[in-house]
Amino acid sequence: MTENGWQHHERVLTMETMNPNIKQVEYAGIKKPFTEVIKANIGDCQAMGQKPITFFRQVLALCSYPDLLEDGKFPEDAKNRARRILQACGGESLGAYSASQGIEMIRQDVARYIERRDGGIACDPDNIYLSTGASDAIVTMLKLLVSGEGRTRTGVMISIPQYPLYSAALAELGAVQINYFLDEDNCWGLNITELRRALQEAKKHCSPRALCIINPGNPTGQVQSRQCIEDVIRFAAEENLFLMSDEVYQDNVYADGCKFHSFKKVLFEMGPEFSQKVELASFHSTSKCYMGECGFRGGYMEVLNLDPEVKVQLTKLVSVRLCPPVPGQALLDVVVNPPQPDEPSYNTFIKERSDTLAALAEKAGMTQEILNQVPGIKCNPVQGAMYTFPQIHLPPKAIMEAKEKGQSPDMFYCMKLLEETGICLVPGSGFGQREGTYHFRMTILPPKDKLKIVLAKIKEFHQHFIEQFF
Amino acid sequence: MTENGWQHHERVLTMETMNPNIKQVEYAGIKKPFTEVIKANIGDCQAMGQKPITFFRQVLALCSYPDLLEDGKFPEDAKNRARRILQACGGESLGAYSASQGIEMIRQDVARYIERRDGGIACDPDNIYLSTGASDAIVTMLKLLVSGEGRTRTGVMISIPQYPLYSAALAELGAVQINYFLDEDNCWGLNITELRRALQEAKKHCSPRALCIINPGNPTGQVQSRQCIEDVIRFAAEENLFLMSDEVYQDNVYADGCKFHSFKKVLFEMGPEFSQKVELASFHSTSKCYMGECGFRGGYMEVLNLDPEVKVQLTKLVSVRLCPPVPGQALLDVVVNPPQPDEPSYNTFIKERSDTLAALAEKAGMTQEILNQVPGIKCNPVQGAMYTFPQIHLPPKAIMEAKEKGQSPDMFYCMKLLEETGICLVPGSGFGQREGTYHFRMTILPPKDKLKIVLAKIKEFHQHFIEQFF
Ligand SMILES: Cc1ncc(COP(=O)(O)O)c(C=O)c1O
Ligand SMILES: Cc1ncc(COP(=O)(O)O)c(C=O)c1O
Repeated sequence: MTENGWQHHERVLTMETMNPNIKQVEYAGIKKPFTEVIKANIGDCQAMGQKPITFFRQVLALCSYPDLLEDGKFPEDAKNRARRILQACGGESLGAYSASQGIEMIRQDVARYIERRDGGIACDPDNIYLSTGASDAIVTMLKLLVSGEGRTRTGVMISIPQYPLYSAALAELGAVQINYFLDEDNCWGLNITELRRALQEAKKHCSPRALCIINPGNPTGQVQSRQCIEDVIRFAAEENLFLMSDEVYQDNVYADGCKFHSFKKVLFEMGPEFSQKVELASFHSTSKCYMGECGFRGGYMEVLNLDPEVKVQLTKLVSVRLCPPVPGQALLDVVVNPPQPDEPSYNTFIKERSDTLAALAEKAGMTQEILNQVPGIKCNPVQGAMYTFPQIHLPPKAIMEAKEKGQSPDMFYCMKLLEETGICLVPGSGFGQREGTYHFRMTILPPKDKLKIVLAKIKEFHQHFIEQFF
Repeated sequence: MTENGWQHHERVLTMETMNPNIKQVEYAGIKKPFTEVIKANIGDCQAMGQKPITFFRQVLALCSYPDLLEDGKFPEDAKNRARRILQACGGESLGAYSASQGIEMIRQDVARYIERRDGGIACDPDNIYLSTGASDAIVTMLKLLVSGEGRTRTGVMISIPQYPLYSAALAELGAVQINYFLDEDNCWGLNITELRRALQEAKKHCSPRALCIINPGNPTGQVQSRQCIEDVIRFAAEENLFLMSDEVYQDNVYADGCKFHSFKKVLFEMGPEFSQKVELASFHSTSKCYMGECGFRGGYMEVLNLDPEVKVQLTKLVSVRLCPPVPGQALLDVVVNPPQPDEPSYNTFIKERSDTLAALAEKAGMTQEILNQVPGIKCNPVQGAMYTFPQIHLPPKAIMEAKEKGQSPDMFYCMKLLEETGICLVPGSGFGQREGTYHFRMTILPPKDKLKIVLAKIKEFHQHFIEQFF
């Protein structure tokens, strides 16, 4: 107690006294001064007009209000899925807590889905943890990995450019972020020489223990080749690194000749010396792909070769927050267990899914084509995911003016774009980029007509910007 | 790299290398060897048969599958709520990410709800943060508060017995847990002398900075008096402590003469010297009360007198995980904005709500009455929440046998109960209790007939147990 009691009351929680790690957290973003902006900044499909899959929403409505199970308007397959999900819920209700690892039946459905995806490679439902979006599972896994102090502090390798969840979580946990640069000149490929360079350097000041890969990539839109994934796995095995593969865009692959290869599958194809050794956590989500159900916060992680005792610790850790949202679990269940050819909703489901994916593919092509027409903008093919991360050439005068304003040059550029056109992009500095290069991230999500306008406006803006600062 | 490359590959993540804080996390529970058990162990209302409120589920179904807005079977007020919620969502869909702090319109509705609850005391929607259940907001707030090392490390005062989320989160964050004991002889009241004792002792080895109160109490079922709350606030002001009031059971008050008083309201009634100074975060959830919608993971926190710069940090922190589940936000909206007297669903809503609360009140009375008839069981009145935490007198022989087995005596008791009757309770040691005393926690949630059987079986078991170990 202070001598004069609470009269000398000062704030308990201030910038000086708060958790110093949180202060280090940075999150890519831009403050929007407009009410009417064209948001091409976040991967929020339905906010940009993408339609949800009818079947999924029917099942969710039936689960939410089971009286509808008596309603003739709903197809039988939707009713069957809803009944099956409800039977797996406590009290047959979405309103009960589930097991902290997720509803067992849904974990089994996820395991069968992974087996189909990976050509029959076995998946144990006990290795599946349902989560509150992929974000939750990624942070949980990083949390388990962090230990040590000073030179023994855990280092985690992440790609640059990166999805800022990673840097934010590492800062929060006080872990060491180890940057490896993706190869912009090779379609944002992953280069083992660069991985090795980053690792050797990091070993001088921390204890590197995990390697994160995002494939298909956010913000860079590349799809890694099978060979690359094999090389990464070999590297992780040699260097004793825990692999974390973020595969939330696994169904978002557009470019000819590109194919999604899961780390799990490649690991098993490399034989038991790898598949029985390398520790891997891979992540998926209901937020992206053709469903785009970000708001439901559904997702899962699969762990492989996790130390059984650590697995007990993981299960304990997730139980602290009780359970992932059950509607998100229900949604995940229909994602991994969609209508089958002999079921009434099959045709509609297939049509909706392929329409959405075809529209995304078309917009991916259009985006790279139009941006590459602009002198001073250089854009890799959008092979997958939902983004392009073009390099922009900024005149020295613009860079100087930005620095005078205390802004990064790409932030200066994006702010000007927003002011002049109402288009909201995210500056590359929010994701990381090689010193002296500038980028922005834009999504391919606006509806086709709107996207065309956005691209035309960016083109016009860029040309004007160059003239202005020449 | 090891000399022989990956041939010497050892597991990266082991009990030795994992985050040591996570190892310290303990979570109350009991491994269930039975498939058919009567779960009186967790506060999971709907899993125990409590029915959801029809209106809430109608709105959720309408929001999930908006085609139903054309359906004549749904009442107009449910449709209006659903339309209003959808209009506040990105792309008018539950499937879009919301603002990280929660949907603005829902935060406004929460603010108005708090104003009504607290007799008109103003509430600023900017102080409301929607969350993934109360668990999420509680952990977030603790995370902000933790800093320092050694003797300057943040200490957080929590009641014993406690809800184990608190000890688990503090262990995970590496903060110092400061125990203050609730007064079992005074209906689990909160005693300022005990708070002062705990604080003085803690000051010798850490920097106490926050005080957590659960009211109504879990696991103890007490409802704190207005006077007590005022005393706690005065104590926090004097001692410069950040207050965290967990009010998830605010509508679960059963005992005559007991009333829920929010910390916010009492703080304002104490005048501006307090209401403009004391830092308070209070928590609410859709999981308890009469709605019992645990699976939706809805909730909110209100912060008061938070340093504006820290508030920016808080907002940044919650943005890392993108947003709370939108269905849970929608549910929260109808909870704070239920049918009004002039609306078609009003009568049904009122009937369902009062039936549920009346059933809980009846079961609260029944539980304490029957348990208190058992020699060797002593049970405080269940004034509120959903639990009783009776003290059990265990014979020395039982205590000895438990210790030989390496079990805590109350765990030994609960395991025997489970084996012999199939009833699952949680041992008091999972919540904390005074040295040498033994308790269990049981919920009052089983349906009345089942609860009667449970209580009769516990009575019979206890008598038999005493005889066996006499
Ligand atoms: C690469 C990547 N990983 C993870 C996430 C998190 O998604 P969610 O938490 O919605 O599943 C995102 C979201 O944009 C992402 O782009
Ligand atoms: C006192 C108390 N606080 C918080 C919670 C967390 O509830 P939820 O995260 O479901 O809102 C509970 C759940 O039982 C509780 O009893």
